[in-house]
Amino acid sequence: MAKAFLDENFILNTKTAQTLFHEFAKDMPIIDYHNHLPPDQILNDINFENITQGWLYGDHYKWRAMRANGVKEDYCTGGAADFEKFEKWAETVPYTLRNPLYHWTHLELRRYFGISEILSEKNAGRVYDQASEMLQTKAFSIQGLLQKMNVETVCTTDDPLDSLEYHVAYNGGKKKEGDVGMLPAFRPDKFILIDNPNFNTFVNRLSEIVGFEIATFEDIKKALKQRAEFFAQNGCCIADHGLEHIYAADFTDDNVEKIFKKAKSNQAITEAEATEYKSAILIALGRMYSALGWVQQFHLGAMRNNNLYALRTLGPDTGWDSIGDWPQAQALSRFLGKLGETGELTKTIIYNLNPADNAVMASMIGNFNDGSVAGKIQFGSGWWFLDQKQGMEDQINVLSNMGLLSKFVGMLTDSRSFLSFPRHEYFRRILCNIFGNDIENGELPNDIEWVGKIIQDISYYNTKNYFNFNNK
Amino acid sequence: MAKAFLDENFILNTKTAQTLFHEFAKDMPIIDYHNHLPPDQILNDINFENITQGWLYGDHYKWRAMRANGVKEDYCTGGAADFEKFEKWAETVPYTLRNPLYHWTHLELRRYFGISEILSEKNAGRVYDQASEMLQTKAFSIQGLLQKMNVETVCTTDDPLDSLEYHVAYNGGKKKEGDVGMLPAFRPDKFILIDNPNFNTFVNRLSEIVGFEIATFEDIKKALKQRAEFFAQNGCCIADHGLEHIYAADFTDDNVEKIFKKAKSNQAITEAEATEYKSAILIALGRMYSALGWVQQFHLGAMRNNNLYALRTLGPDTGWDSIGDWPQAQALSRFLGKLGETGELTKTIIYNLNPADNAVMASMIGNFNDGSVAGKIQFGSGWWFLDQKQGMEDQINVLSNMGLLSKFVGMLTDSRSFLSFPRHEYFRRILCNIFGNDIENGELPNDIEWVGKIIQDISYYNTKNYFNFNNK
Amino acid sequence: MAKAFLDENFILNTKTAQTLFHEFAKDMPIIDYHNHLPPDQILNDINFENITQGWLYGDHYKWRAMRANGVKEDYCTGGAADFEKFEKWAETVPYTLRNPLYHWTHLELRRYFGISEILSEKNAGRVYDQASEMLQTKAFSIQGLLQKMNVETVCTTDDPLDSLEYHVAYNGGKKKEGDVGMLPAFRPDKFILIDNPNFNTFVNRLSEIVGFEIATFEDIKKALKQRAEFFAQNGCCIADHGLEHIYAADFTDDNVEKIFKKAKSNQAITEAEATEYKSAILIALGRMYSALGWVQQFHLGAMRNNNLYALRTLGPDTGWDSIGDWPQAQALSRFLGKLGETGELTKTIIYNLNPADNAVMASMIGNFNDGSVAGKIQFGSGWWFLDQKQGMEDQINVLSNMGLLSKFVGMLTDSRSFLSFPRHEYFRRILCNIFGNDIENGELPNDIEWVGKIIQDISYYNTKNYFNFNNK
Repeated sequence: MAKAFLDENFILNTKTAQTLFHEFAKDMPIIDYHNHLPPDQILNDINFENITQGWLYGDHYKWRAMRANGVKEDYCTGGAADFEKFEKWAETVPYTLRNPLYHWTHLELRRYFGISEILSEKNAGRVYDQASEMLQTKAFSIQGLLQKMNVETVCTTDDPLDSLEYHVAYNGGKKKEGDVGMLPAFRPDKFILIDNPNFNTFVNRLSEIVGFEIATFEDIKKALKQRAEFFAQNGCCIADHGLEHIYAADFTDDNVEKIFKKAKSNQAITEAEATEYKSAILIALGRMYSALGWVQQFHLGAMRNNNLYALRTLGPDTGWDSIGDWPQAQALSRFLGKLGETGELTKTIIYNLNPADNAVMASMIGNFNDGSVAGKIQFGSGWWFLDQKQGMEDQINVLSNMGLLSKFVGMLTDSRSFLSFPRHEYFRRILCNIFGNDIENGELPNDIEWVGKIIQDISYYNTKNYFNFNNK
Repeated sequence: MAKAFLDENFILNTKTAQTLFHEFAKDMPIIDYHNHLPPDQILNDINFENITQGWLYGDHYKWRAMRANGVKEDYCTGGAADFEKFEKWAETVPYTLRNPLYHWTHLELRRYFGISEILSEKNAGRVYDQASEMLQTKAFSIQGLLQKMNVETVCTTDDPLDSLEYHVAYNGGKKKEGDVGMLPAFRPDKFILIDNPNFNTFVNRLSEIVGFEIATFEDIKKALKQRAEFFAQNGCCIADHGLEHIYAADFTDDNVEKIFKKAKSNQAITEAEATEYKSAILIALGRMYSALGWVQQFHLGAMRNNNLYALRTLGPDTGWDSIGDWPQAQALSRFLGKLGETGELTKTIIYNLNPADNAVMASMIGNFNDGSVAGKIQFGSGWWFLDQKQGMEDQINVLSNMGLLSKFVGMLTDSRSFLSFPRHEYFRRILCNIFGNDIENGELPNDIEWVGKIIQDISYYNTKNYFNFNNK
Repeated sequence: MAKAFLDENFILNTKTAQTLFHEFAKDMPIIDYHNHLPPDQILNDINFENITQGWLYGDHYKWRAMRANGVKEDYCTGGAADFEKFEKWAETVPYTLRNPLYHWTHLELRRYFGISEILSEKNAGRVYDQASEMLQTKAFSIQGLLQKMNVETVCTTDDPLDSLEYHVAYNGGKKKEGDVGMLPAFRPDKFILIDNPNFNTFVNRLSEIVGFEIATFEDIKKALKQRAEFFAQNGCCIADHGLEHIYAADFTDDNVEKIFKKAKSNQAITEAEATEYKSAILIALGRMYSALGWVQQFHLGAMRNNNLYALRTLGPDTGWDSIGDWPQAQALSRFLGKLGETGELTKTIIYNLNPADNAVMASMIGNFNDGSVAGKIQFGSGWWFLDQKQGMEDQINVLSNMGLLSKFVGMLTDSRSFLSFPRHEYFRRILCNIFGNDIENGELPNDIEWVGKIIQDISYYNTKNYFNFNNK
């Protein structure tokens, strides 16, 4: 007989998995160490007016599914009314079966709103009204939503140009009793991508903020250091980078200075020159993070803005990105090797978007564990297109086979939405299910205490120990 | 206790899967929208003299298995007698267990001939005689074979140089009541591959057919357009292309004209020039298909003719092809992006041969769904080496995770054999099994009507609506 | 209820799998046709003083796990006492769950020492004492260890510079009744990698050994042929090569001579020149193996020595290697095609380290089966990082789908340790489990005799027939 959909033992196909989840994983707090949540909304503890604002605005996953279902852009990123957008999404949901959106949607409706119906055009109006009404209450403010999910700390993703005004106002990185912690993370991509036409604009704004002219490569390193130290004062201990692949060409200081000056004076630079600069700044940043004791993260392999028409009409981050197939191994090896050679390789998490690279990544991290800290170099959780059941299982399995799963820092939402936190529960169920199968198959000893401890480590304690947030 | 081999619930491991297959999938007609069937045999409704002719002639899958089993070439493509060839194949079959040939072979023996024995050297003579005798009867003519499998329409693969005489004679693309529909498809590869030594020969033949000199790039576009319009008059609404990867270099009209003229005057062209021409003609063709309202298909990633000795002695398409590992993502993105930028991206199906590219492909299609038509850009079904249980499951799972499986146009045989149509049944069983598992695991709601509808869509209705053949 | 860990039906999830393993696979002898065992220890039939010497010395798998667990280098490759090293390993073991080390460790403790406890820091002392004491007895000498595992023959991996003195002394390649057979294998990598700074040193040593000056490319081919013939006299019939990827550039004899002379006179050679030389020597070696009737093996895709600091301080082969992502298909196709064109392609086994290349490899081998010998070209078993349950299952499944699993030559340890032979058992369990599932699911006929025969072939007879060791 078919198991009920999304019941309490969802994705827990063995008794052992059920025990592991309910007795060990479920109640662990959430440290969401990488996401794209807006800090002003957390500071101001706002309420959404309706579920479209909280759920559909900014959600490129849903837009892509709607477009694939033949829904016009007006209902995705366009000017249609909030309820109309919701209605189009509700119509699409039944066609998303087997896509992670189907599970996410119904988990989120249950966990936040207690709505256990299958969403469709039939109940769209009722669900919209019920959820929107709840979202307007105090219990469903941003803080309410986070606390309902047992979120202990979130780390946002922030531009070196950012004033961090909301973080400063929000306890300046110190966590107050009862509050959800909110820490900034440093994402300096725009100062790496020297071939971006706006590079000089960014550098000029950075110059204004730091209060000195940025005329040389030394200057920009100094300026980024000043910003990083300001970030650190506000609790930041994580950097992140979104790159197609690592750049690790040979470089000389002289060349890099020349290339930087060419760019500054608006001369065209060649691809080789851009690569040389990028290679140099990545090493400089890595060394800076090491000196600061930060964790550095690299999200590798996204091919962005494929749809030129949509880029022109709608702008970036509107759902036209996909998976690239660049070689990853050699540059990553050279980069990590170079930092390690001088003892300046800090804790590092590497995420890949192309699952064909899983084994490369999972084996690469093992080259740079130096025995100083358990799990020093991490293969990050299934990311973006891989943030689904099979993607997470694959990442867990490859990491298991080629490294130590037990030292994994586990799940993060990477999300722009306050309604996406049940993905931690989803991850934990998948994790418990994998261990449950192994135990019941006789592939692991039936030692629930030990496996339960490992699951709690992966769900919470490894993360807590790894980042060791200085925000008390 | 072991389930019987190949019984009515073959690959249907749950009750739900069995219900889905038997009540929803099984009786759907077949639209085989891409294959390599010979149109003259369909028109003339021939009978094969024996099973070797219908089953082994032209079947490179079987030849590769026989060679791997130590069978000499004489029994594959060579001059051995038809029965001897069959005997060698029968000897090989027991060694093909776990290869798709094992399932295909026994499904085909059952579905066409009612023979449910395991083929081996022991019963080779008896099976040969029985099947050959049946093949000589009226009920086993080509039309009989197709109708036995409930085939509604087949789309052949045709050269722009082809007169389409058999299609013209066969109702000219109009389907007559009771007949199997047969439509041509346009495959202009030889006019893309400018670096093929025979390019000029092909262009000269094209020139004769269209009745004007082809001296310029404009001329060849005009000539291909004339042929495409002739194809369209005979019911064609599909183009297909077999390429190692997409070509999407920058090009200028001036350069392309120069390159074309160099080729025409038998001057050597560089690889970069060839790429520039290929990039230009692909865009021109894509725009032409868009204007015609056709579906364009791309079969990407085959590395052909690896065995130079065999190529020299036996020629192409004799079983010496395998899977390439070229980068695919960037050129594909640029190509689709360029067509989309001017609103000239028609419905498109992309097939890949290297399963390591599955995620690239499944995520790429999502960049170009513009909301105009549900499922506009498709990730094609497991192809060639991937046309087996695991390959199809992988394609279905990756598509599920990254797109809308519900809008998938499903299976096609891509076959040269009239005896390969049970592969549709095989695909449907796999599809139903996947949904059955999800439902019984509680990963989908137990809504048989809805899931049954989706399965009928993927088996038949999506295809019917997507191609919308104008052949009534 | 959970199955007991590692019981007699470990990884045998169906009754059929259990029957296949216990009645067909289990008692087959082991031919370990590729490993890195030290021939002097086999000749001298030594005893280890303690389990650290037999189990941890040289085991980079364990070192990587220990480092990932935060264990200092001193306890891995460093100067800590043998028991301290064991203790650190024992502490790490509980954190390796789901890594193959967890299964290997406990299988090895059981099969060699009868210790069925889970190893941890709690029982480290007792296990160390017990195993070490046993290792000092006659029954646990090297020969004892091998015979306990039913090992019939091992093939070591040897340098053309090697005197083979231990092989010569050990029956000169002839197997004596009751002895474990030991044959050398020829691994000429250092004469391929012309861009290695030590190339000339190696050539000079080769020159001394063969007794003539090596001044030309013709000379080095002659010298390697002389060594290969000496190897053949001592029972060698296998060559092996560890390369990032195959080199298959066009070359001319003149160019290759010039490049070789440049290298010999210590002039810098370009990357293109190195590739041309490598391409030429690989073809020359392949032709030589064909003339000798040897099997050639290629281990492709390892990216070595990623950690520059560790390379400098600890040297190679200390656990800093991982998986590369070079393109593999085209060069491999050209190389095999070129050898095949003149009828000089000998039996060949190709191993890949990146699982993303599995389908490329499994389909490539099918291009070069010429029908002369069953299973002539082989896709090798899961290697190194892929030598684990999922890696082996993937290799078996891809080979099944794209070739003839029935003709597979199966498992090898590739190990440096005499305590790793239960990996053959592990492989056979996995193999039987796959067939058992297929039979019980109705995807294969319930013909135990036939499937049992195939399993015995893959476990033993295929290997025996393929290599056909001339060592009686």
